[in-house]
Amino acid sequence: MLNLKIRSLASALAIAGSSAAMAVEWQALPGKAPEPADNPTTVAKAELGKMLYHDPRLSSTGTVSCASCHNVMSGGDDSRGGSVGVKGQVGGRSAPTVWNSAFNSVQFWDGRAPSLEAQAKGPVTNPGEMGMKSWDDVVVRLKAIPGYRQAFAAAFGGEDAINVDNAAKAIAAYERTLITPNSPYDKYVSGDKGALNEQQVRGMNTFAEVGCVSCHSGPAFNGPTLPEGTGFFMKFPTYENGALEAQYDFKKDVGRFEVTKQEADKDMYKVPTLRNIALTAPYFHNGKVMALNDAVMIMAKTQLNKDLTSQQTDDIVAFLNALTGEFPKQEMPRLPAYPNNTFAYE
Amino acid sequence: MLNLKIRSLASALAIAGSSAAMAVEWQALPGKAPEPADNPTTVAKAELGKMLYHDPRLSSTGTVSCASCHNVMSGGDDSRGGSVGVKGQVGGRSAPTVWNSAFNSVQFWDGRAPSLEAQAKGPVTNPGEMGMKSWDDVVVRLKAIPGYRQAFAAAFGGEDAINVDNAAKAIAAYERTLITPNSPYDKYVSGDKGALNEQQVRGMNTFAEVGCVSCHSGPAFNGPTLPEGTGFFMKFPTYENGALEAQYDFKKDVGRFEVTKQEADKDMYKVPTLRNIALTAPYFHNGKVMALNDAVMIMAKTQLNKDLTSQQTDDIVAFLNALTGEFPKQEMPRLPAYPNNTFAYE
Repeated sequence: MLNLKIRSLASALAIAGSSAAMAVEWQALPGKAPEPADNPTTVAKAELGKMLYHDPRLSSTGTVSCASCHNVMSGGDDSRGGSVGVKGQVGGRSAPTVWNSAFNSVQFWDGRAPSLEAQAKGPVTNPGEMGMKSWDDVVVRLKAIPGYRQAFAAAFGGEDAINVDNAAKAIAAYERTLITPNSPYDKYVSGDKGALNEQQVRGMNTFAEVGCVSCHSGPAFNGPTLPEGTGFFMKFPTYENGALEAQYDFKKDVGRFEVTKQEADKDMYKVPTLRNIALTAPYFHNGKVMALNDAVMIMAKTQLNKDLTSQQTDDIVAFLNALTGEFPKQEMPRLPAYPNNTFAYE
Repeated sequence: MLNLKIRSLASALAIAGSSAAMAVEWQALPGKAPEPADNPTTVAKAELGKMLYHDPRLSSTGTVSCASCHNVMSGGDDSRGGSVGVKGQVGGRSAPTVWNSAFNSVQFWDGRAPSLEAQAKGPVTNPGEMGMKSWDDVVVRLKAIPGYRQAFAAAFGGEDAINVDNAAKAIAAYERTLITPNSPYDKYVSGDKGALNEQQVRGMNTFAEVGCVSCHSGPAFNGPTLPEGTGFFMKFPTYENGALEAQYDFKKDVGRFEVTKQEADKDMYKVPTLRNIALTAPYFHNGKVMALNDAVMIMAKTQLNKDLTSQQTDDIVAFLNALTGEFPKQEMPRLPAYPNNTFAYE
């Protein structure tokens, strides 16, 4: 995994000031996510993935599904700071949104998963999240459910298609359908100049001029489009600030260092998408900042060493609200039954 | 609330034996649930109710919605013994199914709510379930969400339509749409004699002959159709059995006595529907019995003092599987945003 470090780029753009706005290549969100060669999206796979994604029987207690923390009925997250796993355990990081996650080149705040497929396997057996002892135990449950035997066969072929890799592929295929195009911003950059109001246009320019766009670039505002597995990371906070640190404990978590144990990865995080950011409070890896205007001011201070005026902040927030896209209508999946019985949940 | 006690009726029917089968008036499930005069179902109300029903922001932690324990993507319950509320708290009773609950004349295992509207208010402020300190706190949250202000206005009219009564009415209106008609049983009693196989027909007769139907009668197999608020209760267990009690702790819970403190209500429970019973394991008020065939044998023993043969049990289970209906397709609700912010969850 190539670890792109762009502190120097960020500084260069910040110094360049208003000319940065001119240089920005504003991009609309594609209507379709990239797919890996070994997991092309099919209807049967995405439908199976939707079931698995919403099925709490993939947790030790039978109460937590992927959707519990990444709720597709809302912003694709859980509106909380630390997410809640089985037995009321509260995690240390805020759940990233699943919407448009197909446009991240790596997954998790620390980028430890190189693909949606790899990500999908993680929470199920994390003791603090879905708490299954092993994927073997998950497979035993899935095999006991006739509807899953049929759905895996339909998606992957064969009598014995239920296994961890296929489950992860199906979930990833479903997630690649979770795209929110046609935000006011997308309409604007596609030529509909009435799609943004005056304040939003001002905010768009401010977003570029102060340097936000140096990291939050590209169609998903999470950096340049990179091959899956590449990763686009940034140090947070870049400029340390005692008062903010005392209030928000940002550095209690060491980010990507936890994964690589490389000193250079201390406080490094995947640059998150800003798509639908108005719907995914609270903010930052630890979810300690509740309001978007505070998040914007903090980012300017910690990443660009700038004090935004309240007008600039309000304008940027207005622009960020224009990144809320259209959520595709979805039919609720029917979770196939384990007829006449249930599992021994914790 | 009229408390109908039918122990004598049950005994009479049990004694009558096979003639009971002849006397049974088999009824199909109506396609529409009864509605109270002061809460006619409208599309706007049911749509609002669907949002509220699925919204975990109605809980203190932001993690538990009505759907958490009454999952409409599956059997309308949570497949568990004790349900899990906020902070991992495990309750003492098994969540009844929400599907066809509109055909219960009272709600909860102990019948303490005379209507779906009354029921909907309970779990939200139960400290062990959704944990809100008060409905006033819920209303404060709902009023902060622009989409809810619009949806309540659309459903109830007026600028200030957000209050506990309207929230409960909307949830109840949604629940009245959760009906599963056209089960094989329904088709059979409507004239399609091929809808049940031979074993299921045998099971249907056995179900009547041994006396199950003395309580599990009517279109929802939860007793006769009664005016809302009436209640149809039965003592469980009626015939005490030391071995079963030692294994399953049925009498640890005293049922309706907890509500009324009347000695006559000790161990009395609402007769639950058998609709979709194959999908709602585990069984009984405490969810201690995992498999349906065990539940059938136990019921015969504790309620009718009969020892079923394994053939009789298998036949009845086959018949009960014919009570699984058609689940209406549902679009996922979009939960309206609290934009640029979140609530202070526990």
